[in-house]
Amino acid sequence: MAVRRFAIIAEADARTIEPGTTVELEAGGHVTPLARDTLAARRVTVVPAGTVDPALPTDLAPPATIARVAIGSDHSGVALKAALIDHLRKGGRHVEDVGTSGPEPVDYPDIAAAVAKLVARQQADAGIVIDGAGLGSAIAANKVRGIRAAMCTTSTLARYSREHNGANVLALGATLVTPAEARDIVDTWLSTPMREARYIRRLLKIRRLEGGT
Amino acid sequence: MAVRRFAIIAEADARTIEPGTTVELEAGGHVTPLARDTLAARRVTVVPAGTVDPALPTDLAPPATIARVAIGSDHSGVALKAALIDHLRKGGRHVEDVGTSGPEPVDYPDIAAAVAKLVARQQADAGIVIDGAGLGSAIAANKVRGIRAAMCTTSTLARYSREHNGANVLALGATLVTPAEARDIVDTWLSTPMREARYIRRLLKIRRLEGGT
Repeated sequence: MAVRRFAIIAEADARTIEPGTTVELEAGGHVTPLARDTLAARRVTVVPAGTVDPALPTDLAPPATIARVAIGSDHSGVALKAALIDHLRKGGRHVEDVGTSGPEPVDYPDIAAAVAKLVARQQADAGIVIDGAGLGSAIAANKVRGIRAAMCTTSTLARYSREHNGANVLALGATLVTPAEARDIVDTWLSTPMREARYIRRLLKIRRLEGGT
Repeated sequence: MAVRRFAIIAEADARTIEPGTTVELEAGGHVTPLARDTLAARRVTVVPAGTVDPALPTDLAPPATIARVAIGSDHSGVALKAALIDHLRKGGRHVEDVGTSGPEPVDYPDIAAAVAKLVARQQADAGIVIDGAGLGSAIAANKVRGIRAAMCTTSTLARYSREHNGANVLALGATLVTPAEARDIVDTWLSTPMREARYIRRLLKIRRLEGGT
């Protein structure tokens, strides 16, 4: 489907744009304040005209606006998860917590898969998975079709994982980051959109790998 | 298949053990020096009796001994890749280099998939993938069935990715680590086997996720 291009996006236009897609705004164009809210609710990404490669599916890049976050952790990340849920809700985001909530050992692939599937089914705009180092949860989440999971220990990596790799699941290591560091990483990650066509194009190659080997 | 258990592993025994599998050694048991070489050549992992869960496939954990390494990088990691290939060959390992070798931009998913497929087909015992941050290559490699790829910035994470997650592909960020740091990370990663049944059991859940969602 060709990307739609606008000079002005008013509320009435915004309601005609397919949720989760990307549209282009001409140079000097603008979005009305009411339309901005509607676009956010529909998780529409607005980029400068000429940025989108018309040969690419418009749902390749993750939603730029993240309202609904799925989160889960194994037993090692329960405290960090609670701190992040509190932080996300205070920031006005809807949070779906898939567990775990106690000290009993659980298997990180189960938790990571639960979060990943909510994101893959578009029941969440993004996911956060936590275990001791975050590495195993990232591996497991990446096994789910449509998921690009990145383990990030810094805000710089978090930004990079969105801009370059369109990560839609963030993996955190409960033994690697403090709650304050994790909040910074999460805030950066959630607020960084993926915009550049040359990077988005590479996601098509990742999608093709999901077809099986 | 039930795991085989030995009191003594002599050369003649070693030659009967399926390559790439894990066997148990009884308490007080021993392995003859000649058998040790044969086991290494056959990439057999020897663990204490009672460690292996007989309900688990014996090929879940990655080979403990890594003789053949597949390596690849995008344009940003060419220099680091060259340094690592030199280091690996000096260490006596066979290295297969899938490229790239020049400054022309290439797409990290292509390189990561090439390395991952060599490992998945057991044409290499382990793989190393490099791009700017290593995050994208880890995502792409994980899309290949049988691959567990971890992006590691420290030797501690590298050890953890093997012990806990049985990583068979290591992802490195050329902008994140110096060649000396990368050599340390690689050495730790290649020399750390996965031994604990409670961790190996979780790999079964990752394998199940590869069946599709």
